[in-house]
Amino acid sequence: MENALSSQQKMDRINQTILNLTHRFDELTVDECFSQIGSAAMSALDGHFCGIYVWDHDEEPYSLATIGSDREFSDSIDQPWMKEFIHYLKQIEAPTFMNDPEHPFPNIENFPLRQYICYPIVLFSELLGLMIVLRKDKPFEEDDLFLLRPLANLLGTALPNIYNDSLVELAEICIRFLEEKDPYTHGHSLRVMKYADTIAREYKLPAHARRELKICSLLHDIGKVIIKDSILSKPGRLTDYEFKIMQMHPQIGSNITEKIGKHFAEKILYHHERYDGKGYPAGLKGDEIPLISRIIAIADAFDAMTSRRSYRNSMTVEKALEEIQRNGGTQFDPSLVECLVKAYKEGRFQIIHA
Amino acid sequence: MENALSSQQKMDRINQTILNLTHRFDELTVDECFSQIGSAAMSALDGHFCGIYVWDHDEEPYSLATIGSDREFSDSIDQPWMKEFIHYLKQIEAPTFMNDPEHPFPNIENFPLRQYICYPIVLFSELLGLMIVLRKDKPFEEDDLFLLRPLANLLGTALPNIYNDSLVELAEICIRFLEEKDPYTHGHSLRVMKYADTIAREYKLPAHARRELKICSLLHDIGKVIIKDSILSKPGRLTDYEFKIMQMHPQIGSNITEKIGKHFAEKILYHHERYDGKGYPAGLKGDEIPLISRIIAIADAFDAMTSRRSYRNSMTVEKALEEIQRNGGTQFDPSLVECLVKAYKEGRFQIIHA
Repeated sequence: MENALSSQQKMDRINQTILNLTHRFDELTVDECFSQIGSAAMSALDGHFCGIYVWDHDEEPYSLATIGSDREFSDSIDQPWMKEFIHYLKQIEAPTFMNDPEHPFPNIENFPLRQYICYPIVLFSELLGLMIVLRKDKPFEEDDLFLLRPLANLLGTALPNIYNDSLVELAEICIRFLEEKDPYTHGHSLRVMKYADTIAREYKLPAHARRELKICSLLHDIGKVIIKDSILSKPGRLTDYEFKIMQMHPQIGSNITEKIGKHFAEKILYHHERYDGKGYPAGLKGDEIPLISRIIAIADAFDAMTSRRSYRNSMTVEKALEEIQRNGGTQFDPSLVECLVKAYKEGRFQIIHA
Repeated sequence: MENALSSQQKMDRINQTILNLTHRFDELTVDECFSQIGSAAMSALDGHFCGIYVWDHDEEPYSLATIGSDREFSDSIDQPWMKEFIHYLKQIEAPTFMNDPEHPFPNIENFPLRQYICYPIVLFSELLGLMIVLRKDKPFEEDDLFLLRPLANLLGTALPNIYNDSLVELAEICIRFLEEKDPYTHGHSLRVMKYADTIAREYKLPAHARRELKICSLLHDIGKVIIKDSILSKPGRLTDYEFKIMQMHPQIGSNITEKIGKHFAEKILYHHERYDGKGYPAGLKGDEIPLISRIIAIADAFDAMTSRRSYRNSMTVEKALEEIQRNGGTQFDPSLVECLVKAYKEGRFQIIHA
């Protein structure tokens, strides 16, 4: 019995998906858009898994979407072999496939993929990511690459809308220079960004939200730059008046960043809210506080405790985590606190020394 | 004789264009992509003109592409009525059309459009721009809006890849803070950006290149931030050694910005090249120097001459323009010098006072 679709039938199906998507793009969410493209690739190629991968500015690969129930591959991006494999495909920069070879992948021990096909996601000459489809039985053919091309292209147009590292890079440069003059804040925002990202990975935050978190955590204290150094670096207690001025920094930061994007400004505005509603400037409570702001609050407090400040020495990591756990449910979102603690206990949390 | 296509035939044509584009996106240039979408809109709607409009961070509208030979509308974006019209359509935020009304546009005197149709370009809930088609004879119908939707959606996915103001905004914030401390450089990069943009508009540089120019001109001196203040703000002549250090700033700036984008870094590297090949760091000549770097060189020199520096007072605008013209063909690209002079003579050049 021959049930297989012809190449032309498969291409017709893909074209139908593309038209459906294009006619409805203005009402889709990011996730719907990616998962529909991934599903179309999987079904046209009779695959059992499709992954869409990009890499961050440290060249660390991660998955933007995985389609298919194969748990082994959905989480594979955390495996060393998968990282090396993505790195290898990135170097090739060309469509490619592999069928059940004798030596599947010489440089990687126990390489678990027998059959894969990969199409690079390129737009305006820039390599943005990779689309990979896995299949268990039939071998891939040259023609299958043609099927993937329009889908990879459509990803290429949609991808930079939600994932563009230039902004993260510039924010990092900007904040690094601004913090340079003060030995006590030097590197603070960069560390907050890394700690926040640790919580986000543990929380399985989608890639586009993680990018937003990176930008917001890098810029969360930008409102402090217009506060006088005499207050910022004052050894000892602030007066009530000085404290009021200091408390204006989320609002100032939000005003400064509004033109970069209202969604960034909003998250920066609320990074000093408390989970119990006793924070500032708005006194928001629980889930009223944006998730990204709740993450930054924890990362910010953790770095403040573990770094040396003008008025005290730093705490040990264990002591700081204890302190943060003690404030879960009052100052911090307890489920996010648990993410940080879990990452630390399981060795996925790297402390950065000032 | 009835030659008109049915709605379904028109939609089929549009779908064909979409598929053609999606299958070939990875080999298209930005301009090809926009002009093919615009042409498809025009031909499906029997229009005589199609314009794709966005606005910059000052809400100033400009055209990303115009298709059709109607010169009157191609250049209309510089007309006050067109600016007001775009502003009006932007407020509506909904697909709309107009047919030969008695009072075409109450707030705009001598409004020249009798028939137009407009579809907003939206992606992931954000309004990015507008697509407008004009037609002289037949009235537009409700169905015509459906024809435009997939094309506007496709523009929506492609547009932010080349046109995203967040990066310009962040660069502006970054450089404003960095320059704040020094009264002599305060506002320099922002002014260079505005002057460079004046030249670019006069030169009819495409919108995506203008965006790149903005970012590069804002960041052109970022390499100076790691040069000691004692050299930067030294009153009087620099020693040979100090001068050598100063001359390293394009290379340093290029290294700093490389992660934001290699294309930015390259333009910053060459902003002190001279048209006659006697500049630094590479001694490139004429067209070997990237266009964007050649524009920055002129804007940079113009601002240096017209601003007060530690070692001398500022020149008048006329004197500075004369000086720049005198150096056209040696230090500067003469055709770009002419753009600046023409903009000034014809009143399209706004001097910014420090």
